[in-house]
Amino acid sequence: MTTATDTSTAAAASSNATAGKVITCYAAVARGPHEPLVLEEIEVDPPQKMEVRLRILYTSVCHTDLSAWRSEVPEGERAFPRILGHEAVGVVESVGEGVTDVGEGDHVIPIFNGECGDCAYCRSATSNLCRRYRVDPLRSVMRSDGACRFRSRADGRPIFHFLNTSTFSQYTVLDSACVVNIHRSPAASDRTDADVPPPPPPSPRHLKMMSLFSCCVSTGVGAAWNVANVQAGSSVAIFGLGALGLAAAQGAKVRGASKIIGVDINSQKFIKGKAMGVTDFVNPMDSSKPVHERIREMTGGGGVDHSLECVGNPQVLREAFLSTHDGWGQTVLVGIYSTSQLLPLHPMELFDGRSITGTIFGGVKGKSQLHHIAHRCLQPDMNMEELITHELPFEKINEAMQLLADGKALRCIMHL
Amino acid sequence: MTTATDTSTAAAASSNATAGKVITCYAAVARGPHEPLVLEEIEVDPPQKMEVRLRILYTSVCHTDLSAWRSEVPEGERAFPRILGHEAVGVVESVGEGVTDVGEGDHVIPIFNGECGDCAYCRSATSNLCRRYRVDPLRSVMRSDGACRFRSRADGRPIFHFLNTSTFSQYTVLDSACVVNIHRSPAASDRTDADVPPPPPPSPRHLKMMSLFSCCVSTGVGAAWNVANVQAGSSVAIFGLGALGLAAAQGAKVRGASKIIGVDINSQKFIKGKAMGVTDFVNPMDSSKPVHERIREMTGGGGVDHSLECVGNPQVLREAFLSTHDGWGQTVLVGIYSTSQLLPLHPMELFDGRSITGTIFGGVKGKSQLHHIAHRCLQPDMNMEELITHELPFEKINEAMQLLADGKALRCIMHL
Repeated sequence: MTTATDTSTAAAASSNATAGKVITCYAAVARGPHEPLVLEEIEVDPPQKMEVRLRILYTSVCHTDLSAWRSEVPEGERAFPRILGHEAVGVVESVGEGVTDVGEGDHVIPIFNGECGDCAYCRSATSNLCRRYRVDPLRSVMRSDGACRFRSRADGRPIFHFLNTSTFSQYTVLDSACVVNIHRSPAASDRTDADVPPPPPPSPRHLKMMSLFSCCVSTGVGAAWNVANVQAGSSVAIFGLGALGLAAAQGAKVRGASKIIGVDINSQKFIKGKAMGVTDFVNPMDSSKPVHERIREMTGGGGVDHSLECVGNPQVLREAFLSTHDGWGQTVLVGIYSTSQLLPLHPMELFDGRSITGTIFGGVKGKSQLHHIAHRCLQPDMNMEELITHELPFEKINEAMQLLADGKALRCIMHL
Repeated sequence: MTTATDTSTAAAASSNATAGKVITCYAAVARGPHEPLVLEEIEVDPPQKMEVRLRILYTSVCHTDLSAWRSEVPEGERAFPRILGHEAVGVVESVGEGVTDVGEGDHVIPIFNGECGDCAYCRSATSNLCRRYRVDPLRSVMRSDGACRFRSRADGRPIFHFLNTSTFSQYTVLDSACVVNIHRSPAASDRTDADVPPPPPPSPRHLKMMSLFSCCVSTGVGAAWNVANVQAGSSVAIFGLGALGLAAAQGAKVRGASKIIGVDINSQKFIKGKAMGVTDFVNPMDSSKPVHERIREMTGGGGVDHSLECVGNPQVLREAFLSTHDGWGQTVLVGIYSTSQLLPLHPMELFDGRSITGTIFGGVKGKSQLHHIAHRCLQPDMNMEELITHELPFEKINEAMQLLADGKALRCIMHL
């Protein structure tokens, strides 16, 4: 791979040589469903007003990337050629007009669920769904002008964006609402404040972990903290011990949950689970007895206070629901349901005092709250590095995709 | 009808002549589904340990009585002969061993969703479902010994109980957990406290309104206050303007809701609705446009903050859900779903920040909270008497049932 080269004649108004110019770099382009990603040269336009261009340092693969690649999504969500990827960390190459909260050289994480800070949703304490920049699987272009910032170097044709982020590329362009500098707290984010010292350069180890805050850690931990609001002494069941579920387990553990039951059809997951806080384990395949009955037995007959469904399967959802304690048990939907099946619940089942709720990005408001979550997750009592099971060069992205698809990797960090 | 007569030789330990004895009185007995209720002589046993025997003064009919009578319920809930009825007010005739919080002569209301005050559910701030005395449509006998306290005078055969209450009878026996003295606050409920003056005798007008606190008022108002937690300036849609929905409207109104949209297929309901706080009205039959689209138009495009589904119909539930604002909108299920249809929602629809929750008895803990709710509802700014549209003697109970079934009555108070 070559490094970035200037292909624009526009004068750079910034201190770096590429600002304001089209950048040529490599991206892993999904040209069609199930087709191996192609590492090819693309052109990346400069950021427009309120946009940011990043150089991606590390990125990883999430099941949502796999689903989009396999087209296990509704018709309207399919768009090819496309640059997938939404879990990453990068450094700001340049910013467009009006961007003040991040600048060239800042280490930042892209967030697929943005926060403008100004709409009714952002102003509401109860929602993390921004009116303009919330996650939108139907959108494959930039919000501001409906255009792409990516073009094929070979034929000049546009390449579609993905989930506000498109991190399977050496350079990407995002709305500034989708870029978070977790090394600078929101209160100190005004760059005109001369009292704020520049943050120390993060270590490669921290940068790799930061990439997980883009999605799996924030979603899992946020589900346990913001949505379930797990309290000391409570009991939790986590369905699906992938990266999301394990992050949720660790979140529940540091909140002091007394019992964290992992549920997975792969019993090997209990090994990693124990390292992340899981205290008990159920393999649904080990017994013909329904999982919810086994979980009720493990909890003195009543069921757990919280269950987190991290699989995205309606029948698993039903087990998760029935595993909770009547009267107050809560089921949090964390996984994504790429199926047309409706909720397998009868309305009267909602009268037993159990609740069910879905969450995007763990209920975290990215720009204003991710800073705190991330710094808490970097404390010594939490070990999110356990989620990084593999590292590969960017060229091996198809291998990374396969590792996740085969259940062999939790997170494979790719070096760009 | 005759008045109560003694048929037992047991000595009365109380100041009244009937305590400790079997009482013969009239009850409206449901002998089979859809068969007119038969006003017949029954024998009512004395209350056992921790039970209370009441003389019912006023009772009314609720849709739940109709459903049980018509057997629009699962097999296990059907039991005949049975004494239906659960909305009423009465006076304590005598109490069994161990009952201290109510006594002979107290005016009380029966609650179908009892509160023992001691189980994990009662001790939890988040649940109003008592372990032993929660509403249980499958139970048709007393909790303590699995026996009936009612017998047919004609053939001596037992007659089943209904929803912990069975108020379609001149006398009934309840667990003390299902009896609330709303004229004495829970804090002053210890009858050994000599400082507590006896409450003034309630007026007939208050007694009639008190009967509505047994079910419809507490459920509707509680849904607005406890479950939806309606705040000043918020918008509410109420699906179904029966007694439940109208009570909820009035609850939302006194909380300061700025828009209360009533939805009903009978446009006449808007007249009564206005008197109870409804500000806007939608008749689904007036347009082919889905109700949720009309409600979104009426609320600036976003939808309401809260919708309350008081009908018990899954398709109405879906409209109620879609009528709420994404990001924070909440649907509260208040009506009872006597259908086998599952929730017509896709799991991903729970990821848009909308929530859905069911509630029994408006989330009210009967013994500890009903006193406060009832006294608030008796203040001059609330007019729950609007719900009393008819009054009839007990003998005309079948007429009262028909008035409700035909949608001609909100509540018909029967004088026993």
